[in-house]
Amino acid sequence: MFIEAGDIDALARGCAVLGTGGGGEVSTEALVARQAIEQYGPVRLVTLDDLHDDDIVMPVGGIGAPSVSAEKIGSGDEVEFLRAAVEGILSLPVGALMAGEIGGGNGLYPIAAAARMGLPLVDGDGIGRAFPEVHMASMNVAGLMPEFVVVADERRNSVLIRPIDGKWAELLARAVTEVFGGSAAMADYVMPVSRARGAIIEGTVSQALRIGRAVLSATNPVAALVEAVGAVKLIEGKVADVERHTAGGFVRGSVVVEGYGPDAGRLVRVEIQNENLVALEDGAVLACVPDLITLVDSQSADAVATEVVRYGQRVAILAFPCAPIWRTPRGIEIAGPRAFGYDFDYVPMEAGHGVQA
Amino acid sequence: MFIEAGDIDALARGCAVLGTGGGGEVSTEALVARQAIEQYGPVRLVTLDDLHDDDIVMPVGGIGAPSVSAEKIGSGDEVEFLRAAVEGILSLPVGALMAGEIGGGNGLYPIAAAARMGLPLVDGDGIGRAFPEVHMASMNVAGLMPEFVVVADERRNSVLIRPIDGKWAELLARAVTEVFGGSAAMADYVMPVSRARGAIIEGTVSQALRIGRAVLSATNPVAALVEAVGAVKLIEGKVADVERHTAGGFVRGSVVVEGYGPDAGRLVRVEIQNENLVALEDGAVLACVPDLITLVDSQSADAVATEVVRYGQRVAILAFPCAPIWRTPRGIEIAGPRAFGYDFDYVPMEAGHGVQA
Repeated sequence: MFIEAGDIDALARGCAVLGTGGGGEVSTEALVARQAIEQYGPVRLVTLDDLHDDDIVMPVGGIGAPSVSAEKIGSGDEVEFLRAAVEGILSLPVGALMAGEIGGGNGLYPIAAAARMGLPLVDGDGIGRAFPEVHMASMNVAGLMPEFVVVADERRNSVLIRPIDGKWAELLARAVTEVFGGSAAMADYVMPVSRARGAIIEGTVSQALRIGRAVLSATNPVAALVEAVGAVKLIEGKVADVERHTAGGFVRGSVVVEGYGPDAGRLVRVEIQNENLVALEDGAVLACVPDLITLVDSQSADAVATEVVRYGQRVAILAFPCAPIWRTPRGIEIAGPRAFGYDFDYVPMEAGHGVQA
Repeated sequence: MFIEAGDIDALARGCAVLGTGGGGEVSTEALVARQAIEQYGPVRLVTLDDLHDDDIVMPVGGIGAPSVSAEKIGSGDEVEFLRAAVEGILSLPVGALMAGEIGGGNGLYPIAAAARMGLPLVDGDGIGRAFPEVHMASMNVAGLMPEFVVVADERRNSVLIRPIDGKWAELLARAVTEVFGGSAAMADYVMPVSRARGAIIEGTVSQALRIGRAVLSATNPVAALVEAVGAVKLIEGKVADVERHTAGGFVRGSVVVEGYGPDAGRLVRVEIQNENLVALEDGAVLACVPDLITLVDSQSADAVATEVVRYGQRVAILAFPCAPIWRTPRGIEIAGPRAFGYDFDYVPMEAGHGVQA
């Protein structure tokens, strides 16, 4: 199967939904991906079974606060630069690219480079959504070590991190990204196909495409999206308050939605660290990480990113289940609410209507 | 020639004088060096001419605020770890160690590892004194690029920086050091002997030994030190004020010395960024970087480090000339007063008595 220029719109919409508010700005990445495909041809989308066991998969993405990366445009050849660095380290050719995270602009990030370099793209990613920190990867949950992480900027500075664990990878990559001005390109968990099996989340590019197509072809986009991802609509209403600041390399803050229609009189607050982390109502947890919480436009079902959500917007808040690996004890430990500093246990979104935080 | 355990005291005193207040804590490094020599044998001190043109010289040292490194003790095998990283990058064995800077504890830093690993130590360094920033190296003045910098911590995290220039090397290494807790081990400007010629400052280990021996054998240590380094004594007096804080990975502040005896009624202020940068009197520059400014105990001539200088200490402030490479236009550009944010031109210490800043 190939990703054609005509697929990018649907893919971008799907990635935005899976981005849970983050994962980087989508529209610029979509533009870059579409232009590259038009110029260099479509990108072959492959499963792990289409590749050889020892083919090297290079996950790539942008790191940094989305509010910065939206304004700080890269050179366009960061992935080529990362590939050269990785091939120098491994003395092996890269066989396929993969999105480090499918959510947001990062889901589209490898496409332009794949088109230019003629490399296939793995139908999968390392999260199944977007998460703000480097060690919040399914490969980490599966017990793989990030043997090295390469962070590069548009000036052609590069930094190779060999951390003792995922947490140090995050701390070091974040500090380097800050020096680079708040956003950078990153490759981590570079691995042969044999190690990727069971460690990556397969099928997420196809899933994003399916989500986008369902929304695009629907007369009631929100209902179509709810069905496509198996979501619960937590509330529909107007954005009544937005608090947002960029600090320590992250966008942090919260959004309050005031219900209307059947939801009149209700208030739901969503708390943010690049991505939407928790949805709360009257102190009760409606949904929380690692499950997905996405604000969408109540008419178009377009996902609303944390860095652009604004007072008065009419939105629906959807919650839908994360990939099963995130619901394992180690998955919850790495990306459950306590990993983000919350003092309550994970509540699956299916059960989360009214559990006291 | 060999560095024996009995040489360490003199060498440590000399390194402290060349440290101009910084370069890292000396006494711990001296202890570690002496113990390693007693256990593994003396360290062969070599000139570049004793080595082959393609032998790899690895400059090493500690990076970070001296106030942190004095309390945050390393694992003791950081240099071995750096060596393994460097040999992995180059696919070549390291032929000799060298102090990245001769000043302060960093002048002694490679000795223990050289003893343990049986590697020779180059009689020279990359500064001829101590400087606070990574790009302030004679190799940079000579036009060599820091192709890579390796920073490692005692936990065995390592970071390989491939910067586009020395300034980016400094920014990135500093941020990584901060993540590591404020001090770390570093190798930079790793190079073959053929490139080290004319780019390093040769003979500085011997010089430090000579300075230390001159002081140790003298009946008037300050006079002996003045003669040994060709210094001017700017003032002798009591420390009347110390302002010091650790920020952004550096110790910054100032020390005011109030003269007594023949200097009664005079006040000299020394400004600090890890090292002593400028000596001022009534707004006039007495001496400034890249020349060396060292506070010494007025009785013992022991150098007083910026992180321990205290109110009431009786000291002499000495100024003496830097290595000639620092007085070239590029040397002044990299480490003259303007490189540290001062709005005045370099004044050679020989001429600097009363030039208005």
